[in-house]
Amino acid sequence: MRIGQDEYRAVFWDTSTQAVRWIEQRLLPHTFTIVGSRNPEDVAQAIETMQVRGAPSIGAVAALGLALAWQVDRGRFFDYWLQRFRRTRPTAVNLFHACDVMEGLAIGEPSSEVMIERAVYYGDEEVAANCRMGEHLAELLAVGERRILTHCNAGWLAAVDWGTATSGIYHLARAGESPFVWVDETRPRLQGARLTAWELMEEGIACALQADSAAAWMMAQGKVDCVVVGADRVAANGDVANKVGTYALSLAAKAHGIPMYIAAPSSTFDRMCSKGADIPIEDRHGDEVTVMDGMDQKRCHRHIRVATERVRVNNPAFDVTPYENISAIISENGLWARGAD
Amino acid sequence: MRIGQDEYRAVFWDTSTQAVRWIEQRLLPHTFTIVGSRNPEDVAQAIETMQVRGAPSIGAVAALGLALAWQVDRGRFFDYWLQRFRRTRPTAVNLFHACDVMEGLAIGEPSSEVMIERAVYYGDEEVAANCRMGEHLAELLAVGERRILTHCNAGWLAAVDWGTATSGIYHLARAGESPFVWVDETRPRLQGARLTAWELMEEGIACALQADSAAAWMMAQGKVDCVVVGADRVAANGDVANKVGTYALSLAAKAHGIPMYIAAPSSTFDRMCSKGADIPIEDRHGDEVTVMDGMDQKRCHRHIRVATERVRVNNPAFDVTPYENISAIISENGLWARGAD
Repeated sequence: MRIGQDEYRAVFWDTSTQAVRWIEQRLLPHTFTIVGSRNPEDVAQAIETMQVRGAPSIGAVAALGLALAWQVDRGRFFDYWLQRFRRTRPTAVNLFHACDVMEGLAIGEPSSEVMIERAVYYGDEEVAANCRMGEHLAELLAVGERRILTHCNAGWLAAVDWGTATSGIYHLARAGESPFVWVDETRPRLQGARLTAWELMEEGIACALQADSAAAWMMAQGKVDCVVVGADRVAANGDVANKVGTYALSLAAKAHGIPMYIAAPSSTFDRMCSKGADIPIEDRHGDEVTVMDGMDQKRCHRHIRVATERVRVNNPAFDVTPYENISAIISENGLWARGAD
Repeated sequence: MRIGQDEYRAVFWDTSTQAVRWIEQRLLPHTFTIVGSRNPEDVAQAIETMQVRGAPSIGAVAALGLALAWQVDRGRFFDYWLQRFRRTRPTAVNLFHACDVMEGLAIGEPSSEVMIERAVYYGDEEVAANCRMGEHLAELLAVGERRILTHCNAGWLAAVDWGTATSGIYHLARAGESPFVWVDETRPRLQGARLTAWELMEEGIACALQADSAAAWMMAQGKVDCVVVGADRVAANGDVANKVGTYALSLAAKAHGIPMYIAAPSSTFDRMCSKGADIPIEDRHGDEVTVMDGMDQKRCHRHIRVATERVRVNNPAFDVTPYENISAIISENGLWARGAD
């Protein structure tokens, strides 16, 4: 998607340097930097430290990282690198899916070129899926619904290109419509403030940023036509794990009769997981809540502490929204129905 | 209440210097400072800039500020100072109540001493009301309910002493019980992270800080026994204006069958306001959402920007919770019932 006049992807293979490259998302929106490495450990750390985040982008960069590991450290590939990548984040199923694909390929002892080609194709498939999903989603959003509320970043930064939730919005805008987006800032990591608002503005989409707590109040005032969010994992019964706050939004949307749409590429579906309660929820470090990153008046990056250091913090990164609170789950194949997938 | 080994109030009259004094709440929890002034304009600005915040504390400091205005600038009292103080914040009814009381007293042309005495008494009455309210509230909280969720700072900093919502918790703890408190950080101004968590810790109450979005998820997991929050204004029909996010909490509490208690001293009740929809809701500056204050590693206070400067921000400071979402409203007179007050 667009940044200024240019088109980018969140993660990609750079043929000229034979390196994995990714947008360093932690520095956005203040600094736009592309990081590259030929060391698979750097790629694993990029996932762990959330330089790359968002389930589909994580899957795509893990595939590229494993292709790199195959190229530079084939001897340790099975024992070490697969384990190393699988350990990076627990909740997004795409990561494990990407690892399984690369593990399966490696059994045939292919050349490095074939592994890289396959990893690149893995990302391309995500992008094509997002694009098709966006077309389906845009049809739903076009039905009189223009004031769309979203949470976290289910945008192209999270999903290589197009995004998941945002794909419908981008398709709508490119079709000449004028969607308006309420962007939840999304505490604790502020992906809405830092990434989604920035993405939307770079694409020329009208939006307003708000505290997560304002969402239900906007609904009560009749200012929200629908909610669209992404998913980190969809269980077989349709329960959805997504950024913490999604569950609260689903309760508010239900109370106000507002449609709640989940945009989830099929790589996010986990048939082996029967219900939401079985999805492991990542508890992250308390500093995510008590320490903030940003830019001071002199445009220096700063970390500041906003609460007392001694305080105990409860920081679940995700929550589970039961299927009955969801109006529709949309994948690249269109509307998902429980039992049909 | 306690800070370290000492007892404090959020606002008070300092007889020795004949000045209004208040805790500079914007610097907490990093720096504990008491500011004093003999200039009523400083007091008005302390309300506007939220050095003093919380409906009862605002009322109490406005009464003291007006007593000071009577003492140092009596000539302009009616025309200027009453208007000046009434203009400082729009939502909390206590402010207008305090202004009305001081205006009424001034008609009798009392001495400065009498005005100051009356303003001090105004604050003392708040404290006595909070204390009685806390006793009533503690009875409700003691019924098997120990894991209490609160939002914003309805603590003693907001209410001169004891607090409103926290008063019940402090009474419970002083009675030898062991309440545990989930503290919503309360975006955008982080009163939960900066003030409530600090207050509770100074009083030795067990608590955990969390993103506002985590509250509904904790309820879904059966980890919340009740919700207790304060109120900025209670309409005649029982609708409650309080910090944005209260409405979302009420929806979640209702969905999970968890009691939702509002702690509201009678100074918060506005009989002239028939319903919640008539309460003016303050829209505050977007910088509250996009700029954060805190302390860097070298213990310097810093302001940092977390979102792009160009973004449009939606920042309603309060929301309205309808009476039907509320289990009970507790004032210093005990349980409030619609139509009985």
